[in-house]
Amino acid sequence: MTMTHQKDLKSVFTTKDLDFKPAAKLTKKDLNASVTKAEYAVRGAIPTRADELKEELKRSSNSLPFNNIINANIGNPQQLDQKPLTFTRQVLSILEYPVILKVDHEKLASLNLFAKDALKRAQRLLDDIGGSVGAYSHSQGVPGIRQTVADFITERDGGEPAFPEDIYLTTGASAAATSLLSLLCKDSQTGLLLPIPQYPLYTASASLYNAQVLPYYLDEEADWSTESDEIERVVLDALKKGIKPSVLIVINPGNPTGAVLSESTIAKICLIAAKYGITVISDEVYQENVFGDVKFHSMKKILRKLQNLYPGKFDNVQLASLHSISKGFMGECGQRGGYIEIVGFSQDIRDALFKLMSISICSVVTGQAVVDLMVKPPQPGDESYDQDRQERLKIYNEMLTRANLLYETFNELEGIKCQKPQGAMYLFPKLVLPEKALRESKRLNIEPDVLYCTALLESTGICTVPGSGFGQKSGTYHVRTTFLPPGTQWIQDWRGFHQEFFDKYRD
Amino acid sequence: MTMTHQKDLKSVFTTKDLDFKPAAKLTKKDLNASVTKAEYAVRGAIPTRADELKEELKRSSNSLPFNNIINANIGNPQQLDQKPLTFTRQVLSILEYPVILKVDHEKLASLNLFAKDALKRAQRLLDDIGGSVGAYSHSQGVPGIRQTVADFITERDGGEPAFPEDIYLTTGASAAATSLLSLLCKDSQTGLLLPIPQYPLYTASASLYNAQVLPYYLDEEADWSTESDEIERVVLDALKKGIKPSVLIVINPGNPTGAVLSESTIAKICLIAAKYGITVISDEVYQENVFGDVKFHSMKKILRKLQNLYPGKFDNVQLASLHSISKGFMGECGQRGGYIEIVGFSQDIRDALFKLMSISICSVVTGQAVVDLMVKPPQPGDESYDQDRQERLKIYNEMLTRANLLYETFNELEGIKCQKPQGAMYLFPKLVLPEKALRESKRLNIEPDVLYCTALLESTGICTVPGSGFGQKSGTYHVRTTFLPPGTQWIQDWRGFHQEFFDKYRD
Repeated sequence: MTMTHQKDLKSVFTTKDLDFKPAAKLTKKDLNASVTKAEYAVRGAIPTRADELKEELKRSSNSLPFNNIINANIGNPQQLDQKPLTFTRQVLSILEYPVILKVDHEKLASLNLFAKDALKRAQRLLDDIGGSVGAYSHSQGVPGIRQTVADFITERDGGEPAFPEDIYLTTGASAAATSLLSLLCKDSQTGLLLPIPQYPLYTASASLYNAQVLPYYLDEEADWSTESDEIERVVLDALKKGIKPSVLIVINPGNPTGAVLSESTIAKICLIAAKYGITVISDEVYQENVFGDVKFHSMKKILRKLQNLYPGKFDNVQLASLHSISKGFMGECGQRGGYIEIVGFSQDIRDALFKLMSISICSVVTGQAVVDLMVKPPQPGDESYDQDRQERLKIYNEMLTRANLLYETFNELEGIKCQKPQGAMYLFPKLVLPEKALRESKRLNIEPDVLYCTALLESTGICTVPGSGFGQKSGTYHVRTTFLPPGTQWIQDWRGFHQEFFDKYRD
Repeated sequence: MTMTHQKDLKSVFTTKDLDFKPAAKLTKKDLNASVTKAEYAVRGAIPTRADELKEELKRSSNSLPFNNIINANIGNPQQLDQKPLTFTRQVLSILEYPVILKVDHEKLASLNLFAKDALKRAQRLLDDIGGSVGAYSHSQGVPGIRQTVADFITERDGGEPAFPEDIYLTTGASAAATSLLSLLCKDSQTGLLLPIPQYPLYTASASLYNAQVLPYYLDEEADWSTESDEIERVVLDALKKGIKPSVLIVINPGNPTGAVLSESTIAKICLIAAKYGITVISDEVYQENVFGDVKFHSMKKILRKLQNLYPGKFDNVQLASLHSISKGFMGECGQRGGYIEIVGFSQDIRDALFKLMSISICSVVTGQAVVDLMVKPPQPGDESYDQDRQERLKIYNEMLTRANLLYETFNELEGIKCQKPQGAMYLFPKLVLPEKALRESKRLNIEPDVLYCTALLESTGICTVPGSGFGQKSGTYHVRTTFLPPGTQWIQDWRGFHQEFFDKYRD
């Protein structure tokens, strides 16, 4: 058979046809430079090295000074200790296989697999979706789910109404941010105001869409606060240079800093947006991850309040808020879901955004369903309510406990200083490294925090991301770690490593 | 409470702070022109009008001359008649809720919900995934699933080995294509060779990434065949104009044409790629959708054969093949899954592609699992095998029956001519419209096929896409319809409409 085919193929070409010099292969310089120059440290060199070490441990479990890799480099809760919420997964299981709804109810109940409210919610979602999660949905997302999201926002923001037509369900917040930026980055004179330090998705997107990064620095000494004076300074500076400050990115709660914005800070950001006509993208994916008496305030809520307080002054503000199922109590990273709420955009811009989203047809429908479950958890009186609450409480307590332990450990050690955890899943302590370590990193031609994080990985298996991957004030060095890995042994290991590192490099 | 907050906010600004003139809002001209000029007819004006009519029918079911909208505009099988394969959904249901695996086996078996091989496959996938579909996977996709894909390709291509490191699992084929094109479109002198007619994702992407579209025309009279002479003519023409023909898109089986490429045609395409150093993207998402004795040949298989036959001549060819879970027997559009296999790319290019994919972290993990299920269905001897085969046969037969009925209907009517269905999910008949219809469309300033498709929608509720959305030879007009809508009444309705339309406009 193969022989016949090859004979067939042989007859396709004459000798003359084949008398050509094969062309050269692609090289890096043939690629889109915007893509090749983009950087994304969260899955960069150190996590890649961690993957190699993981493979090495699989081949030979005692070849390294540690037994496993602790992935503290990425907010991926279910890779680690965090269990999915039972209610969420019961509903998803039924959505995937609606035959379950047709089984004899008593027989099904005897297995104790699915709660009544899970069956009910699955039925409602299937009705909204149109029967099957395997069909493409509306490009903006299933209308019924967008209604649930709008109801949630209305309640969260103290009654300020939200509308399903302003909601776009997305394949996670990364896809949401890149869609918005691809639309809003007009040309190389477009300025993107980005917090530094900052989750590198935004610098990578700025590179992909050829925009100018306009960094505004967060104030580490004031718990990584956002200073509107600093933002305005950057805006004015850009305008002087002929760059149009078009988009302002806010991450609240912060990544990697964990800082949570106050109402007055948000109000001041809205003022800058109103004054200079800057579109705000408010990345609020960690809105459920706030600790103690810290309170999350949405940009939308404060904007609406200002619009009510000062008629006409803030009506021009254009805001896109992002949320995600990957963080908070869901931690459903792999399910890829999220939403954008837009406020104040004209019909032209809405149409363009819709068209852009329709090119990728729709976001994953099960991910859309998880958004519904995130914003509308079981309520008191529902069969799943108690278990759901307990599961949430456990997640919250474990995260808080580990965050505090890490924070205290860092602050007990020499040469490392950490701000108090307020929110998100990360700590971003500052490293004050000895001169000898700085010289060594210079010799190796790497950043000093890369030296530290590499040594940490190679000695303990703890995988983190150097602060240079997020941006930091020149001459300062940091490390970003999640506080997701289970147990406390790794924190002790880190302590041991840190002391050895300082002993080695102490001046 | 709200009052206190508003008071707080009131104290934030001084009168001087508020003494500013609010800036103007964004207009279309402030957006990225590459996005605003992109077009995507599959969810364009006519489908949008269909959505409006659907809403109107909901409000008042007898206000229109039809009772429902027939969505023949998009290959969305599960929106219509096609049922998901039972085995797929059983496995997915377990993946979402692995507690099912811990239920007493006998008790579970009494419900007859999950087959033994479904339980086994789910366990294997969970092991490969690392325990939870809610965790981010490796950016290239779960290694074990990539191995299954590589095994499938190896077998499909007659033993030519495929490797998991060459596989990238993606959020559907659209995301795969746009990722590849964003990397390969270097600048405005990059030429994209695109078949005309063509699924408009590619023209839209060319616009998004500022590439030059280099159209090559398919030969309608020869069953929409792809002529390598035509491609080479376009290549030479582009070179003369200083445009670098960098990427050649092939859609096999074709969308919207349904044409399936022969081995010799594929070989000739490989020759052009080798001679001119053009990277080939082979969109093979309809590879399961071929009818009768038509056989699908992958670009990769033919390339490998040529490399064996003519050492040194074809080794430089760089190929990316796309597949998807949205079409074929799965039809799992809403689950968003697919893969890219790359061949011949240097390490630099691979690294850049990996980085690009890591910026969006990973594709949806359940979608990755569906890829596994697509390429490795139940085998003879497995509990699910018989049912699975029957379900596939039913899908195949129903599609073929409707395709043939539509084809015959079109060819019985005046002024419409259709090529014989070979594959994919579409027919793309040519409309030979009367002069009066052409004049009417001129008067309305719309394309003649838009006039036809709009009238079809408004009279019958049948939603199609005009040929102008896919590109067509100047002066020819077409309509693309899927053959997915259930039943045959709609085909009779279309017949009736067509006759009336011609009666109305007959010269």
